Formats: sequence, C-alpha cells, structure tokens
Amino acid sequence: MSSSGFPSAKLPESLASLSPAAQPKLHLYTAPTPNGFKVSIILEELLLAYPDAKEIQYDFYQLSFDNNDQKSEQYLKINPNGRIPGLVDDNHGGHNVFETASIMIWLVENYDKENKFWFSDPLLKSKANSWLFFIHGGLNAMQGQANHFYRYAPEKIPYAIKRYQDETRRIYSVLEDGLKLGKGEWLVGDKYSIVDISAFGWVRSHAWAGVEDISAYPKLSAWLDRIAERKGAYNGLGVPVRPKAKMTKEEEEEQAKAASKWVMKGQEQK
Amino acid sequence: MSSSGFPSAKLPESLASLSPAAQPKLHLYTAPTPNGFKVSIILEELLLAYPDAKEIQYDFYQLSFDNNDQKSEQYLKINPNGRIPGLVDDNHGGHNVFETASIMIWLVENYDKENKFWFSDPLLKSKANSWLFFIHGGLNAMQGQANHFYRYAPEKIPYAIKRYQDETRRIYSVLEDGLKLGKGEWLVGDKYSIVDISAFGWVRSHAWAGVEDISAYPKLSAWLDRIAERKGAYNGLGVPVRPKAKMTKEEEEEQAKAASKWVMKGQEQK
Repeated sequence: MSSSGFPSAKLPESLASLSPAAQPKLHLYTAPTPNGFKVSIILEELLLAYPDAKEIQYDFYQLSFDNNDQKSEQYLKINPNGRIPGLVDDNHGGHNVFETASIMIWLVENYDKENKFWFSDPLLKSKANSWLFFIHGGLNAMQGQANHFYRYAPEKIPYAIKRYQDETRRIYSVLEDGLKLGKGEWLVGDKYSIVDISAFGWVRSHAWAGVEDISAYPKLSAWLDRIAERKGAYNGLGVPVRPKAKMTKEEEEEQAKAASKWVMKGQEQK
Repeated sequence: MSSSGFPSAKLPESLASLSPAAQPKLHLYTAPTPNGFKVSIILEELLLAYPDAKEIQYDFYQLSFDNNDQKSEQYLKINPNGRIPGLVDDNHGGHNVFETASIMIWLVENYDKENKFWFSDPLLKSKANSWLFFIHGGLNAMQGQANHFYRYAPEKIPYAIKRYQDETRRIYSVLEDGLKLGKGEWLVGDKYSIVDISAFGWVRSHAWAGVEDISAYPKLSAWLDRIAERKGAYNGLGVPVRPKAKMTKEEEEEQAKAASKWVMKGQEQK
C-alpha cells in the first residue's frame, strides 16, 4: 500500500476456505506479541461461537517492527500511539480502535450478541472494567518492563530486573486471589470472558520475563492450562504466526537480540 | 474501623454545609496523588453540573501509605490490588470499583445523565475507551516509572531515568497530536470529558517526573491551563488535601524522601 512496503492482508487459518472475493470487514493490524494474541484469540472465539456471523470474519496485517511499520503515517491514522494491535471496522464506516482492551471491548459489545464472553449486568460489567484496567495498567505494563530489563536492555541492571519481576509476581498473586472469589475458575462472574483472555496474553509468557516458576499460584496455573486447551485460544495464537512452543537457549537469545534491536532503535528515535 | 486505625470519613469542602445526618452514599478511598485527584475532580465536576442530585454527594477516606492502609484486609475488599483510589457505591448495594479509569467510567455511566463528561454515541464512546486505555497503560504507568527512578529509587540509574522520561515525552507528543484532531481543545469529541481529566491528573505533575519543560507541546500546555482554570478541577485538587502550588527545592527533597520510604517498604514486602 504505502511506498514503505506496508504489508498486505492475510486470512487466518480458520478462514482459509473463504473465497478471496468474500472480503472480511474487520481488519486487524498485529504482530506475534502478548497484546496482539489477545485480540486474535477473542476474534477466533467469536468465530467459533457465532459460525454464521459473516460480520465477524477478519483478515490481518502483520506489521514489521524492523521496518517500523507501526510508526508509518498510514498506521498512525489507525493507532496514534504507533503500537500494535489496531483494528479497522468496515461494518462501522472504517471506525478505528486502538489499545488491546479497547479493541476487545469493541468486539464483544458489537459482535457478542449473547454475551458469551462479556456481561450484560451493569455490576458485572463494572467489575470486568476494573479488572481489565488493572490488567492493562498493571500486568501488561509491568511484565513488559520486566521483559525490557531482563531481555532487551543493553546493560543488565539488577535493581530494575528485580523491581519488575517482583511486581509481576505481586500482580500474579492479585490474580490468584481474584480467582479464589466466586467458583474459582474465572476472574469475573464465573464465566470465561475477555478479562481472562486479557490476563492470559501475558501470564502465558511468564518465563520470557524471567518468572520461570509460577507454582506459588496454583489457581492461576490451572486457569492458564484451562484457557490454553481452548480451540479459540489455540487458533488465536496462530495469528499472525504461531510462536514456537519450546525454544532452545540459543533460539531464546537470538529472539531477544532481534527484539532488542528494534526496541533500542525505538528508544533512540524518540 | 479496623484495629490498624483505618481513617474515618470526611466531607469535601464543597459539601461542608451538609449536615452530618445526611450521609453521602458514595465513598471515595484516596490519597493526594495523580490517580486520586482524577476521581475527586470528576466527582466535583458532577456536583457542580447536577447540584440537586443527592446521590452524587460523597465522602472520602484518606489512606495513609505510612500505615500501609492500602494493604489492610478491609481495603483489599474494596480494591484487591491494594492501591488508591477505590470507590464504594451505596446507591448500588455497596458495589466496589477499583482502578482510576474504571471508577470514572462508573461515575459518568451512572450519574452523568446528560453525558456532560461522557458520550452516548457508540463510536465516540469507543474512541474515548481507546484514549482512556492509552492514558491508563501508557501515561500513568510510564510517568509513574519516571517518578520512581527520578525521585524515589535508592540508586540513580541514568539508563532507567532517561528511558522513562523519554517515554513520558513521547506520550505527551501523542496527546499533542490527539489534540490537533477535531477543533483542537479536547482529546475526544470536542468536549471536556473524563478522557481529559484522566490525562490531566498526570500531565499537570510533569515537573515531578523531571520533565520540566513542556513548551514543545503548545496545544497540551494550553489544554493544561484550560482544565486548571475550571472550578471542578480546583475543587477536586483539594481532596483529600490540596498540594502546595510551588515547593522549594528543600520541600521537594523532603517529599521525595518521605514517598521513597513507603515506596521502598512496599517493594520489600512483596
């Protein structure tokens, strides 16, 4: 599209049989990261829950951080913050949505007619909002900083690594306590919802932040397995590309090095 | 209430004439911080906008971080994350709301009947959500880290200070660009809303994060003054106690030292 070689649209595996003429109306801009996966997971859950709803079909654009696609003029119109994910909804006049949780809320409020992954009761909706903001500002932000100092920063700064790994563990303990309320399986309203998907996106990558052992959080560990076994989660983790289940130490170092390159480039450009 | 000496309720100045018998139904748990002020500002704006609405009257509890009130068993029932602000709504059966943005959304959805500070149009509401999450996970989280490394951390780590001050500036530039859309006065829908209040809470304290000069963001600077001149903002900044307009270097150092004490205590307790 743009001269910078902005990527073109692809269909997810779950819609591979769709004819090219049947163009989806939802367009996801993403990359294989914790935040990106959250949105592809709720999209795949919605496709499974409402197989006849054509308006939920989507295609995706994989943005290249190496090419700085996320800061292109074209993408900044979708997300002025220049981060993934972003969503354009041609069922609603090309409405652009940014920030992971805002996209998930948009999707369930518009396409989850039976509230299978969301809530109609105002008190439960408010409770879900409280947890979504906690996950967004706490879990995402702090585990992201743990990743930065543990994996990407050019100097190893023990104080910062410890600070953010400790904070990640503290947040896991808040989630563990949250799971102890109600029947103990899901975070809000005894139902698998976008709140769980939101936390899942990051908790599943705990080891990447250097928080290897999460056995101190038994409910959270069981919850993690419970979500990972869902077909919607499996499908969502395949968009835009499925991450390796297990990496060797060498592969981990290579991936950290590659990510570090664009993380540091981003810092210099500011 | 608890044996730990949990504080008792106080009325804000704006409700000082309320008889003690007329007990407010909204209870705010707060402290004089950027996040705390956001909620008292929207409450005061609502009181001014709807002077006859008794259900908006509130009292507040000032939590002491020195006493670790925010981690008391009593408060964790209100906010399982053990942070301020928290809200209990006795108009709705004692419903507890936590996370600043979630509280603000609850207040406007329930008490801003004419959408003076919120939106009825679904596209504008979604746009407001995108900006609220951006402010919550970006501005709050990153300027908070700048405060930590610039003011509170026991060692001065140049890499971390620079990282978070740069990121704070980058976020200010995203807000500046956001203000350039529409008529250029407010972030969403050409209307002063909780989105503006949310960003105001932190941007007004830019100097505390070591980002002294914000003249590179002229629209943001003018927007800051525009909000600061509002009576609702002034009133809200008086709850629970009004911060000093100007501090001497010595007062700044004293405040940073006091805050550092409980910040570090919190880190050790994890």
